[in-house]
Amino acid sequence: MNDYDFELEFTVRDYELDTQGVVNNAVYQNYLEHARHEFLKHIGLNFNELHDNGTDAVVHKTELEYKRPLMGDEKFVVRMRAEQEGNVRFVFYQDIYKLPDNELALKGKVTAVFMTNGRPIRPPQEVKDAMKRAGRGS
Amino acid sequence: MNDYDFELEFTVRDYELDTQGVVNNAVYQNYLEHARHEFLKHIGLNFNELHDNGTDAVVHKTELEYKRPLMGDEKFVVRMRAEQEGNVRFVFYQDIYKLPDNELALKGKVTAVFMTNGRPIRPPQEVKDAMKRAGRGS
Amino acid sequence: MNDYDFELEFTVRDYELDTQGVVNNAVYQNYLEHARHEFLKHIGLNFNELHDNGTDAVVHKTELEYKRPLMGDEKFVVRMRAEQEGNVRFVFYQDIYKLPDNELALKGKVTAVFMTNGRPIRPPQEVKDAMKRAGRGS
Amino acid sequence: MNDYDFELEFTVRDYELDTQGVVNNAVYQNYLEHARHEFLKHIGLNFNELHDNGTDAVVHKTELEYKRPLMGDEKFVVRMRAEQEGNVRFVFYQDIYKLPDNELALKGKVTAVFMTNGRPIRPPQEVKDAMKRAGRGS
Repeated sequence: MNDYDFELEFTVRDYELDTQGVVNNAVYQNYLEHARHEFLKHIGLNFNELHDNGTDAVVHKTELEYKRPLMGDEKFVVRMRAEQEGNVRFVFYQDIYKLPDNELALKGKVTAVFMTNGRPIRPPQEVKDAMKRAGRGS
Repeated sequence: MNDYDFELEFTVRDYELDTQGVVNNAVYQNYLEHARHEFLKHIGLNFNELHDNGTDAVVHKTELEYKRPLMGDEKFVVRMRAEQEGNVRFVFYQDIYKLPDNELALKGKVTAVFMTNGRPIRPPQEVKDAMKRAGRGS
Repeated sequence: MNDYDFELEFTVRDYELDTQGVVNNAVYQNYLEHARHEFLKHIGLNFNELHDNGTDAVVHKTELEYKRPLMGDEKFVVRMRAEQEGNVRFVFYQDIYKLPDNELALKGKVTAVFMTNGRPIRPPQEVKDAMKRAGRGS
Repeated sequence: MNDYDFELEFTVRDYELDTQGVVNNAVYQNYLEHARHEFLKHIGLNFNELHDNGTDAVVHKTELEYKRPLMGDEKFVVRMRAEQEGNVRFVFYQDIYKLPDNELALKGKVTAVFMTNGRPIRPPQEVKDAMKRAGRGS
């Protein structure tokens, strides 16, 4: 349960810093979103194509614990796994570690629901198949 | 417990929308941050001045429930209150309602800690005084 | 030629500041875009509706002169006018002034083209009519 | 004059797209800023350290020509060179090419001035030395 299925490396960009000289809190959600979409691509799903086909993965809830601030010029990695929860929900566990020392910077849990025409749906078969390939499908 | 001490109105700006035509999830944190800083000013505290004096209010945790997406051209209001919790923590309850119909769009809980030189401190006296004036101090 | 047809007031939000304590250069483009879209609405055009109908106003060129940096907590106003130039181009002259002293912060010129299916088109009749109402149409 | 001294590769992130499904105009300035700071690091200058020492490189003017929109999932490269112009100005020529086909997406010219205490200064010796190492100093 504690392992990760995917990781993506980033470098802090100066425009992401605020007056305190640290990455602004909202920007972490950008990092996590980008990592989720790259993860979906990695298992064969494309967020933009799903959208064009009328299905959106909609974030329902985010819980973020800020452990250590990311600073200018730092490198870090988002490590993550996804799990189906109940019939319609996916939970993404996404943690950020500073590189090269692997200090935990953020602990995140993002709950998403697949929707068509504004209603939650059971995950499309292609999503289930992809999750199975990633070893996490039900 | 359910009432609010402060509110701030916004209009969605088109650059905040994503390809789904709704406000991107990260942008809600921008709205909440701006509302918190305006709230602090309202009770006589200035986030930038506190920072210049060596004290930062650092967000420790955010829990956001996305209830209804904000769309282009919509108006909305952030309603909020703050409560001291234990010795060093402040919790900001911040909810977003669409206008004019007051539909709940987001339910947020943001936990912050005052820090000096990277260490949590008891809230400065000026913060306590200001919170008392807002009727929420301990 | 030097007058303005429309203006929109803003307050700097702290998340827009960078480590230098001033509004990040990219954010001025956000301000200008929002002002353009509000201007279009003001003259009876809706950017999102135009897009849904297959027509996009696409920015072709921006020229921005940064005169004085906007700082935290400052209020400012975007003042602007639009002019048709040739058959397919619109030029938006957009200047930012600090309030309350009206110091020039930014001088901007944004050239846009209406496009359908990736090709420049003559402005739709509704755009021409709206520009005429604003006293600038050809 | 047409060659480049430095390049940096990027991948479009979905949160950078707007409702038109293309990268929002303001975001290009983020890309260019990040490329400039990485270029400065590459030649031995650190933007954040310069700032801590009281010297800021302040953007005075940006001229951006949008040639082809960047879309979701695309890879691209910022190619650039810097030239001193007069006593106090640096001009960064920064162009964006889509990968892998090297189609021109944006042509940019960014003029910056080094400032201390709000006044333009001749570039610090360390900047001149670094520019010389990059083969562009005067």
